[in-house]
Amino acid sequence: MTAPSSWPRVEGIAYGGDYNPEQWPREVWLEDVRLMREAGVTLVSVGIFSWAMLEPREGEYDFSWLDDIIGLLHENGISVDLGTPSVSPPAWFFHQYPDARVTDARGTVMGFGSRGMASHASPEYREAIARMAGVLAERYGDHPAVVMWHIHNEYGVPVGEDFGPRAVTAWQQWLKERYSTLDGLNAAWGTAFWGQRYGEWEHVVAPAATPTVANPAMKLDWARFTDDQLRACFTIERDAIRAHAAQPITTNFMAHQSWNVDLWKWAELVDVVSDDHYLWSPDPDAHVLLSLAADLTRSVAGGKPWILMEHSTSAVNWQGRNIAKRAGEMRRNSLTHLGRGADAILFFQWRASRSGAEKFHSAMLPHAGTDTRLWREVVGLGSDLARLGDVKGSQVEAEVAVLYDWESLWAHELEWRPSDDLQFRERMRAHYERLWRDNVTVDFVHPSRHDLSRYKLVVAPSSYLMTAESAAALTEYVAQGGTLLVDAFAAAVDEHDAVHPGGFMAPLKDALGVTCDEYLPLREGDSAQIVMDDGTALDFDVWAEDLHLHGAEAIATYRGGPADGAPAVTRHAHGEGHGWYLSTRLSTDALADIYARVYADAWITPAGYPEGVEVIARSGDDEDFVVVVNHLDEDVRLPLRGTDMLTDHASAGDLTVTAGGAAVLRTPVMEPGGDA
Amino acid sequence: MTAPSSWPRVEGIAYGGDYNPEQWPREVWLEDVRLMREAGVTLVSVGIFSWAMLEPREGEYDFSWLDDIIGLLHENGISVDLGTPSVSPPAWFFHQYPDARVTDARGTVMGFGSRGMASHASPEYREAIARMAGVLAERYGDHPAVVMWHIHNEYGVPVGEDFGPRAVTAWQQWLKERYSTLDGLNAAWGTAFWGQRYGEWEHVVAPAATPTVANPAMKLDWARFTDDQLRACFTIERDAIRAHAAQPITTNFMAHQSWNVDLWKWAELVDVVSDDHYLWSPDPDAHVLLSLAADLTRSVAGGKPWILMEHSTSAVNWQGRNIAKRAGEMRRNSLTHLGRGADAILFFQWRASRSGAEKFHSAMLPHAGTDTRLWREVVGLGSDLARLGDVKGSQVEAEVAVLYDWESLWAHELEWRPSDDLQFRERMRAHYERLWRDNVTVDFVHPSRHDLSRYKLVVAPSSYLMTAESAAALTEYVAQGGTLLVDAFAAAVDEHDAVHPGGFMAPLKDALGVTCDEYLPLREGDSAQIVMDDGTALDFDVWAEDLHLHGAEAIATYRGGPADGAPAVTRHAHGEGHGWYLSTRLSTDALADIYARVYADAWITPAGYPEGVEVIARSGDDEDFVVVVNHLDEDVRLPLRGTDMLTDHASAGDLTVTAGGAAVLRTPVMEPGGDA
Amino acid sequence: MTAPSSWPRVEGIAYGGDYNPEQWPREVWLEDVRLMREAGVTLVSVGIFSWAMLEPREGEYDFSWLDDIIGLLHENGISVDLGTPSVSPPAWFFHQYPDARVTDARGTVMGFGSRGMASHASPEYREAIARMAGVLAERYGDHPAVVMWHIHNEYGVPVGEDFGPRAVTAWQQWLKERYSTLDGLNAAWGTAFWGQRYGEWEHVVAPAATPTVANPAMKLDWARFTDDQLRACFTIERDAIRAHAAQPITTNFMAHQSWNVDLWKWAELVDVVSDDHYLWSPDPDAHVLLSLAADLTRSVAGGKPWILMEHSTSAVNWQGRNIAKRAGEMRRNSLTHLGRGADAILFFQWRASRSGAEKFHSAMLPHAGTDTRLWREVVGLGSDLARLGDVKGSQVEAEVAVLYDWESLWAHELEWRPSDDLQFRERMRAHYERLWRDNVTVDFVHPSRHDLSRYKLVVAPSSYLMTAESAAALTEYVAQGGTLLVDAFAAAVDEHDAVHPGGFMAPLKDALGVTCDEYLPLREGDSAQIVMDDGTALDFDVWAEDLHLHGAEAIATYRGGPADGAPAVTRHAHGEGHGWYLSTRLSTDALADIYARVYADAWITPAGYPEGVEVIARSGDDEDFVVVVNHLDEDVRLPLRGTDMLTDHASAGDLTVTAGGAAVLRTPVMEPGGDA
Repeated sequence: MTAPSSWPRVEGIAYGGDYNPEQWPREVWLEDVRLMREAGVTLVSVGIFSWAMLEPREGEYDFSWLDDIIGLLHENGISVDLGTPSVSPPAWFFHQYPDARVTDARGTVMGFGSRGMASHASPEYREAIARMAGVLAERYGDHPAVVMWHIHNEYGVPVGEDFGPRAVTAWQQWLKERYSTLDGLNAAWGTAFWGQRYGEWEHVVAPAATPTVANPAMKLDWARFTDDQLRACFTIERDAIRAHAAQPITTNFMAHQSWNVDLWKWAELVDVVSDDHYLWSPDPDAHVLLSLAADLTRSVAGGKPWILMEHSTSAVNWQGRNIAKRAGEMRRNSLTHLGRGADAILFFQWRASRSGAEKFHSAMLPHAGTDTRLWREVVGLGSDLARLGDVKGSQVEAEVAVLYDWESLWAHELEWRPSDDLQFRERMRAHYERLWRDNVTVDFVHPSRHDLSRYKLVVAPSSYLMTAESAAALTEYVAQGGTLLVDAFAAAVDEHDAVHPGGFMAPLKDALGVTCDEYLPLREGDSAQIVMDDGTALDFDVWAEDLHLHGAEAIATYRGGPADGAPAVTRHAHGEGHGWYLSTRLSTDALADIYARVYADAWITPAGYPEGVEVIARSGDDEDFVVVVNHLDEDVRLPLRGTDMLTDHASAGDLTVTAGGAAVLRTPVMEPGGDA
Repeated sequence: MTAPSSWPRVEGIAYGGDYNPEQWPREVWLEDVRLMREAGVTLVSVGIFSWAMLEPREGEYDFSWLDDIIGLLHENGISVDLGTPSVSPPAWFFHQYPDARVTDARGTVMGFGSRGMASHASPEYREAIARMAGVLAERYGDHPAVVMWHIHNEYGVPVGEDFGPRAVTAWQQWLKERYSTLDGLNAAWGTAFWGQRYGEWEHVVAPAATPTVANPAMKLDWARFTDDQLRACFTIERDAIRAHAAQPITTNFMAHQSWNVDLWKWAELVDVVSDDHYLWSPDPDAHVLLSLAADLTRSVAGGKPWILMEHSTSAVNWQGRNIAKRAGEMRRNSLTHLGRGADAILFFQWRASRSGAEKFHSAMLPHAGTDTRLWREVVGLGSDLARLGDVKGSQVEAEVAVLYDWESLWAHELEWRPSDDLQFRERMRAHYERLWRDNVTVDFVHPSRHDLSRYKLVVAPSSYLMTAESAAALTEYVAQGGTLLVDAFAAAVDEHDAVHPGGFMAPLKDALGVTCDEYLPLREGDSAQIVMDDGTALDFDVWAEDLHLHGAEAIATYRGGPADGAPAVTRHAHGEGHGWYLSTRLSTDALADIYARVYADAWITPAGYPEGVEVIARSGDDEDFVVVVNHLDEDVRLPLRGTDMLTDHASAGDLTVTAGGAAVLRTPVMEPGGDA
Repeated sequence: MTAPSSWPRVEGIAYGGDYNPEQWPREVWLEDVRLMREAGVTLVSVGIFSWAMLEPREGEYDFSWLDDIIGLLHENGISVDLGTPSVSPPAWFFHQYPDARVTDARGTVMGFGSRGMASHASPEYREAIARMAGVLAERYGDHPAVVMWHIHNEYGVPVGEDFGPRAVTAWQQWLKERYSTLDGLNAAWGTAFWGQRYGEWEHVVAPAATPTVANPAMKLDWARFTDDQLRACFTIERDAIRAHAAQPITTNFMAHQSWNVDLWKWAELVDVVSDDHYLWSPDPDAHVLLSLAADLTRSVAGGKPWILMEHSTSAVNWQGRNIAKRAGEMRRNSLTHLGRGADAILFFQWRASRSGAEKFHSAMLPHAGTDTRLWREVVGLGSDLARLGDVKGSQVEAEVAVLYDWESLWAHELEWRPSDDLQFRERMRAHYERLWRDNVTVDFVHPSRHDLSRYKLVVAPSSYLMTAESAAALTEYVAQGGTLLVDAFAAAVDEHDAVHPGGFMAPLKDALGVTCDEYLPLREGDSAQIVMDDGTALDFDVWAEDLHLHGAEAIATYRGGPADGAPAVTRHAHGEGHGWYLSTRLSTDALADIYARVYADAWITPAGYPEGVEVIARSGDDEDFVVVVNHLDEDVRLPLRGTDMLTDHASAGDLTVTAGGAAVLRTPVMEPGGDA
């Protein structure tokens, strides 16, 4: 076995999507490959839901059709990302092993008939997926068309948790390994509260249905356990493949769209990071969340190029109102992903399914065929991407880091927090959008995992759970000259969801010069103001805090609301740097006033492009690339220089990007923050 | 056995209601029959919930009280519609046969203590209802008072579906009969999607709890299966009765108020159609839905007179706010039903129950007794109906047909459609109300069941599911000179919920000259306009489509919204007729502009009565009857001629109907569409 | 054994809270007792959740830590309210006796991990709590620090009902005892409706999951059964303690905050009444409900002083938005409780928990420690209470009685009432708030339990269920000269939720001179007016009635709405008194016009203090005490005389109470209603 490569063997920017030939007769396959060539498709994912076709009865395999289609694709120069079908065990499997079905928190056993998620703890399931992955790898490990392995599909979606008896046994074992002793568990969970002390490991049950809320530390550990179990299942398949095959192995994440997998940990297990992304229709600015997801994906990939494994050509089917993309929108989405590090642009799926739960999901080839706007845009995008091969492998660099911690998300979402209205994701988005509108590119980081010293500014939204270790890293970052902006409800609890000794924010006291005596949520619909030291008044709602200053200066003060007259925003000099604390909820608009001051401390100067025009740079070895995406309904003119790779048009600092349009400039290497 | 008659042996328009003497001591019975005579009651339904009284222990029967009350009614000249009690098996039955209880989709077994719906698939239940129906028919088949049989009660309400093990076994058997081979089932359900292919019949489970949405074709078949099972239960009872009794047999439908029984199929099984109808309180114009339900009931009855088995004298008890009827409203409701074909006006129930779940349901005899507005109106209505005996047997005739297909409803309501905001029932009502306000009488039809050629206009709202066969019938109808108006989201899928080859609307391409490339739902709360070719602008919301014209002309164009500038309403000449397509959601008001144009194509001229005045004609052999119901708060004057049967007042074309009043004119036979 | 005392042996007004030392190491205990002394704490509740600490394995006891902490408290002069831990059986208990877990109505078994509520019907549970209570009482019955016993915690919260098999068996037994014969049960439940007649006791199941609504009389009895079961569990513990210990025994109620225990019955079982109270955050005037709860607690205590066992220093943690108390609010709350009869002011809890579900619940000692506003207010309150020792034992006297009947609440909340919008609690609050704003002090009463003749006015809101016996007592009260005000939807049903013979309000016909023919709920959002006989128009919504006058005069008439033109408010002379009926829903503001008239009939003259200033008097043997709480944001001046015990400041009729402030005047004994 040679060492696995970290990128599939495909020329240029890969283009394509999921391909499910088993849904169609062979004559359609011939049309498929012809149209794939017309569209410029170079890579398709095959076999993700094919278990029942590959193993129609336990132990009986049928690879003839898969051989056939892979061969056909190969003949036509289209590479294959080969899926393992572990996400969809067949009907016979669940009939044979009913205990492998998932049980929900109310005790209901989830039956067959949708996407057949199995219990991660089922020994029979684990054995079956290892066997299937091994058989596939043995057969296709050397196939010249197969350039990558795609394990499972979107781990944790639609369900990750299992409360069945097999899972409970695994949970008890997991806890033994985590805590060694019951005293350790009892201390970590604070079981003295409500009389929950355990005297035997086997008395610990799952946090399923309970008369009122279950122990939050138990639930937080349950989230970690579930994530660990899913990763264990992935690892089983990965190892089974690696025993026979050297192609890079991935599984498709859903960064900032699914919530029960900690991608910092997952990214360590894959050879190449891939991500699925879908617009959230109720949000008219869903492209901001797209950028966030792309930056997060790149960040968990350690800055290396990544694969956009799935997105949609137009509407999806699983939202309340599935908004179709307008002309040009798919292209903008694709180029934004590319600008933020994606070197492969793939879709779910190649050809729209006539049957099943997702028949209203758009595809590269729609139900109405090729005489459609959609098909013409798909062909156009293929043509665009073919011009962008040189971008491949270049890197995105950022001066600002934003903290992102799935454990804080899990803990924040547990029951009985001070206010239902203060939400991890909403705050994450508000801060990200502020930076996005300012065209300040960010990396996401975890303070216990990353070196913060390379960033001019670190922003910490939604940091309810913050370990002493992370707080120490942030404090050291400030001491060494960094600028830190911490948003409200920060550092309340440690890794066991226990309030920090000394009270809320105690671990950040040195860095910020402030702690919080009490949280002061507002009633639903109430709002008030904070007043900056220059007299500017900003509306806030949802949340205030009773701050206790330990050296910090008040930059803004509450006017009205439960903290009337008290400090709202503080700034503290610590060592060579400054720590800012924002104790309330501000809108993205209102954040502008805060960020203007924080940018100044951090020596950051936003470029001043119109809000809604997205400019991202990728740095190559010898040249840089600037991706410009215009989300506005009017043309914009930007002082950027370079040659648009999409049109070969040269700009000498007066680039015009049409309404809804995009450009990819090839430029000389830029110095970070400087001019080209 | 003589052949069953199709109408119960009752003089004139039957009047009465459900009568539950078992809730009262015998002295109350004597008061009951006295007051029934005072009110003009001629028919009561007895025994619907009496199983526990008739068979207090398994196999032990007690008919003495039933003999007694039927005898008492008979002595007083009141006829009996005798119920079979299969809707309420006794406590001992469920204790003895716990497997006969219904299991819901989450696996919860529904216990005794409410309305004791049993599992339709339980062999013990089926055996028990056959035995009980037989015993009853044997005893009362020749009783002179018993003029009709009333099997069960409101099939499908409150529950129709059962997910228990007996049901699953019946389901597998049903599928075998439907598809013969698993290849057939796999193809019909598109099980290649999400890897659901079945290799054995017994691997097919019910579409109960699943990790995400279950296969939609499976769920659609499950709806068909459930409906078939309920009909099988009905048939068991019907046959058991018919073996001993010749009276007509019915069961009470809930047209357009319950949703899991396909009344086209049910109506074939009964000797006479009967229907229950209740106003939906949140809707201030609920009388429009009453008319819809009445027309639908008459339509499934094949145009023959039908029985209004239940409605309410005033409020019901099971809605969030149970709005009492205002003075005169019960009379208007009753006469509307009569106008639309009901020859029997019955209520739930005779005397208000002191105990139980429905004690706040109004009755003919209210809790407060006879010195009440309600009782006086009940007596008044009896008096009115006694004057209308000649109407009996006359028929309603319609020039317009509206498609109504329960399978399309079931499919439309499955998960993951393009927009939650576009609803079968809302669209059905909007189109019906347009026609209702124009006093254009309609029949409901199913294109694969009915001859459309007798109609000037066919309207197809909510036709998401449309088989190729139905589409061909509609196309032929247009070719032969008919006018067809199809509403949005039409003909997307076939009978297996699979998208039609060629894409949305492909089967209607010839008739309409247009297909749909993509659905374009709007965000919640958004709206835009369509502009008619005469410049009229109409607001729309919820839905737009990306139309692909194949010869049709655009009658209206989108202005704003996701289809800005593209065709919205089209008209196509095909053969001798015209096919219209309306690709968005218009309010009943806005539909007026569309219908004006469509009426012109169809040579329909609405009478021009004030909106809110309802005029319906029934045609007898020698004379016609015109029912006029004034829903307005002011008197109206109408150019109608005839003699008001309620007052003997003659009108020579200047009929005045008081605010909230009604009239029933006896007129010479009218020519369809012409003057008297 | 000496007879139990009715008040714990603590000097003056007791002050303190729940104390859970098991959550902290011993060094913290030393800090705790030091700070308790600083705050003036005299009484703490210990051991409520300590089962797992006291009996770590079945039958193995460990009292060493409890001996230790009780000793430490004793040394420091702090008394102990010793809890029995029956609310939190340990993990081993549920592992050993899985049948002791609670089953919900859907059949889901509630697992361990939150607050471990056990099945009240479990024999093993009952045996275990008896044993534990006995062992504790034997050990601590003579301990000089232990001054009271605190059994269990908030019975009925978070769950009271259990639908498991043990509960069903107990239910059948309970029904046998209640009804003796099945005929009795069948009659009481009206099982003839919907065919529910029972032929064997063991056929009666619990009102768990059913296809539609279950028999309401069954559900009402189920509520009684559940309450009885919980009381049986309490009695088991009480008797086990009393066998060894003479201290007073209590359990903490949640008056008007939990709903499935009938406190009239519970109060008979305890030696001293104690109550927990928490503000309901969405309500900006939640202090009105606080007063209601305090008055209700005093009323169930038969007017004797009671213990405020728990309230909060600031925010709680279990609401959607947990609003912190503003400066002074805790003091106002505490003094209001005291004014309304509480002679002990205790909190949940002494020290904020770092871990567990309630870490965000405020405490006397907050996470942030002693350098906080909260701690300073806690110390201040201790100081205030130390000055109020003479108030102890004085009594509150009221001229007005308000009916409060948990059985009416249970019945009112069953399904399928005429309108979801008319709610027991909302109406109770509206009437109470009217009286509260007028500073008219009230007792709560039950007409079948209390002598009404001592009250000038009796108000009956939310009296949907009213027995003939209660109606007779009210009628006699009016006949003897009383003034009675009955609110809408009154006396509809008897104790079996059966409509009274004669119809709605028939039992009150003599007292009120009016009955109701029909309920006339309004549609959601609709409103109309009533017009008083002096021409005043008042808005109403939700509800109207079709009244039938039997001698009453109409004081107000409907204008608009479903009862347009008919009587809305009536007054009836009966014997020496007057009966008023209000047939619609009026706001607290609008009620002022009605109450002005009713007060006049009752010879009540409100003092005319500003609305929002609360003035309550407690009468001692030799002197009276007037508690004044100013909820307004401005200072008020009141014509009250006396010496403020908090400041020693004397007022000669010109008492100034600062915004948000309070005073406790010591005055000469006042005559009821008169001047000091």
